[in-house]
Amino acid sequence: MTNKPTIVKGTRDFSPMEMSKRNYIFKTIEDVYSLYGYQQIETPAIETLQTLMGKYGEEGDKLLFKVLNSGDFLRKVDDKELVERNTLKLASQLCEKGLRYDLTVPFARYVVMHHDELQFPFKRYQIQPVWRADRPQKGRYREFYQCDADVVGSDSLLNEVELMQIVDEVFQRFGVRVIIKINNRKILSGIAEMIGAADKIVDITVAIDKLDKIGLENVNQELANAGISPDAIEKLQPIISLQGTNDEKLNVIKNVLKDSQVGLKGVEEVAYILDVLKPMQLNNEIELDLTLARGLNYYTGAIFEVKAKDVSIGSITGGGRYDNLTGIFGKPGLSGVGISFGADRIYDVLNALDLYPKETTNSTQILFINFGEKETAYCLPLVNEARSHGVSAEMYPDAVKMKKQMSYANAKQIAFVAMAGENEMQENKITIKNMETGEQILVPISDFMDVFSEQRK
Amino acid sequence: MTNKPTIVKGTRDFSPMEMSKRNYIFKTIEDVYSLYGYQQIETPAIETLQTLMGKYGEEGDKLLFKVLNSGDFLRKVDDKELVERNTLKLASQLCEKGLRYDLTVPFARYVVMHHDELQFPFKRYQIQPVWRADRPQKGRYREFYQCDADVVGSDSLLNEVELMQIVDEVFQRFGVRVIIKINNRKILSGIAEMIGAADKIVDITVAIDKLDKIGLENVNQELANAGISPDAIEKLQPIISLQGTNDEKLNVIKNVLKDSQVGLKGVEEVAYILDVLKPMQLNNEIELDLTLARGLNYYTGAIFEVKAKDVSIGSITGGGRYDNLTGIFGKPGLSGVGISFGADRIYDVLNALDLYPKETTNSTQILFINFGEKETAYCLPLVNEARSHGVSAEMYPDAVKMKKQMSYANAKQIAFVAMAGENEMQENKITIKNMETGEQILVPISDFMDVFSEQRK
Repeated sequence: MTNKPTIVKGTRDFSPMEMSKRNYIFKTIEDVYSLYGYQQIETPAIETLQTLMGKYGEEGDKLLFKVLNSGDFLRKVDDKELVERNTLKLASQLCEKGLRYDLTVPFARYVVMHHDELQFPFKRYQIQPVWRADRPQKGRYREFYQCDADVVGSDSLLNEVELMQIVDEVFQRFGVRVIIKINNRKILSGIAEMIGAADKIVDITVAIDKLDKIGLENVNQELANAGISPDAIEKLQPIISLQGTNDEKLNVIKNVLKDSQVGLKGVEEVAYILDVLKPMQLNNEIELDLTLARGLNYYTGAIFEVKAKDVSIGSITGGGRYDNLTGIFGKPGLSGVGISFGADRIYDVLNALDLYPKETTNSTQILFINFGEKETAYCLPLVNEARSHGVSAEMYPDAVKMKKQMSYANAKQIAFVAMAGENEMQENKITIKNMETGEQILVPISDFMDVFSEQRK
Repeated sequence: MTNKPTIVKGTRDFSPMEMSKRNYIFKTIEDVYSLYGYQQIETPAIETLQTLMGKYGEEGDKLLFKVLNSGDFLRKVDDKELVERNTLKLASQLCEKGLRYDLTVPFARYVVMHHDELQFPFKRYQIQPVWRADRPQKGRYREFYQCDADVVGSDSLLNEVELMQIVDEVFQRFGVRVIIKINNRKILSGIAEMIGAADKIVDITVAIDKLDKIGLENVNQELANAGISPDAIEKLQPIISLQGTNDEKLNVIKNVLKDSQVGLKGVEEVAYILDVLKPMQLNNEIELDLTLARGLNYYTGAIFEVKAKDVSIGSITGGGRYDNLTGIFGKPGLSGVGISFGADRIYDVLNALDLYPKETTNSTQILFINFGEKETAYCLPLVNEARSHGVSAEMYPDAVKMKKQMSYANAKQIAFVAMAGENEMQENKITIKNMETGEQILVPISDFMDVFSEQRK
């Protein structure tokens, strides 16, 4: 029976210290979401495979964790099918359920199933783990949290404006300097149209998206490999290498796209969003970045991405507008726009920049030393008094050596220790020790709470 | 591609209103845990089947959700094994991972794996979902939250005392009147020993546990069916039907168990816990209940269970002491004691008694009506001003009919609505409407925040 336990690769335990930091991140994001009128929902970790399959592309289907049916899971499979070993087909016979892969598809399901109870526009946020059967590697987990906010049922660009404000506010609260990059899928479509390769839009966006990583020459090579004509690639050059302020960029693009209706619509949308944001004086810079495509096929309007200025770590937040989110579930015509904060990377950024507020580690504030039964009985009313004042307090449960109790206090970073031995008890007093300064004071137990409160300041 | 989506049976979506209530429950429990020096950890949803299997009995193994291996999951199985259709064996070949079934076994794994980083006694709490492949039925879910606190690495009964205080405090904060029932496994062992049926302890506790449900006669019948002799059943009678105060009960039991060392140890433990608690004057009654066994085999000392006094719903919290928690993972000698709040039942109890605080539903506090682009530009600085004062505020994103915007405010229970049309704009003013009273006031925009703050009081 005895075995040395292991943890599933790509999953993590979170210690009290890590939890404090993670909770700080989640709480900060939640507070800002609430401030903007977003409301929290939760959906189950387990969804039907019918809900999940076919939503994330072929690769995504493979990365879904599938849950084996209960009971006789071979019920629906005959021997012939078994020995044929068509794993893809068999998987869907052995499993009806899977673990959610993101929060967007479950949200779409939620909106369709609860459509009649919801008030639109529906602004929801959701902070829950998702699972991906990825090959685990540094910084890539099989179980990780997403922190999403989406508005569904409103085409207004004010939603995009608001999401940019949210991003700005969240990172302002974290104390992290970021660049918020925006783009618009319609501009990308316009570009594809303009160079006569509208069917190649996916290839073009994927290639352009790599500019930062592989450089212009390789992007051009990739475009050529994708079957884009030399002429079209030539036309793309000024767009890919566009420089200047947002207004300057917009002017150039507007001119290049003057014959593309959809392209001009994209320019207009970006211009509107930047225009409304201008008087708001965000703390962080917003940059129109035409190379931003996020590889995702379902964005139809705005595309966002956030990078930390002082840590090199890739995108720490992203999002965009997707029309027809719920169409896959038979409810067409609902447009959505949303963002997703990458909690794990933000965690790393805050660690790298040492930006966690000092109070984040909220441990016990006072430990009462246990000298034995009599002493314990003497102290317990004070422990309770501290708690009734909202002070996190502990009585060490065992009457072990003082040294062990003190090292417990140190390890838990408990700021104060209280002791009452025979002397203190005779005088109805207690000793309070400041663990940081080493200072000790002896106080009457009736003054304990007052003196302790004074000491903590 | 279009399909009408469904949710997995036994799982649930939580709406914003439900989330507010659930968060209130979790937050209350968390606050009290923290006050007592417990620290939060989290473990992954997915554990290895090696960690999970064999820990919950045969029935439990069947109720584990197993996760299909990725890639070629048939790799380790030959054709012969496949067509043999030994589902139990095949499941363990097709799956290496499963979803956690409770928080205790993952906690034991955590303690063993992180043993050297931990400071003992280690007081941790953990609030996470667990999964069970149970047949779904009313009030029984396949995915539900547990809210556990455990101390590991201390034999002191002060831990039991503290857990009773925590239970008392949590339900006091909820405003729910409860009876805290306690018992001790050692007393039950003593009883079995005393009637000469020590090997029948499980049968006896299971039968006694049913007293409330099936009555004395059926319990006796069940004991007889389990092979307990008529003589022994006779000896059990005064114990099963014991009445009186805790002290009276303890005296009777002490006398009955005078020849059982383990039994007397149990009596002593209960007496100590009740004794230390006495001067603390808990808000709720603690009752020694010898019929309490909780069906679980792994408790070795104290056993707790909490019932609501004003709602009939079964146990809403439970726990106890288990020696050698981590022995299954090769680390013997660590004793643990813990409790688990049943969030779903507490949710039902608070609903039944209408005990949620009014502020629980924290929605948007003010909605700005959207009359068009100009009006929006006029209002946005005020929306931002409200948010910068910590007031949750929304601008309706679309310039749709006033009626629709008002019904949005009503549905979201937004207390105030702000409006600025042409008249207001000309005068640099804005109208604030109290949605409850219907009262409207016109204020200069420079006074907006002051007046609004005044109105909200």
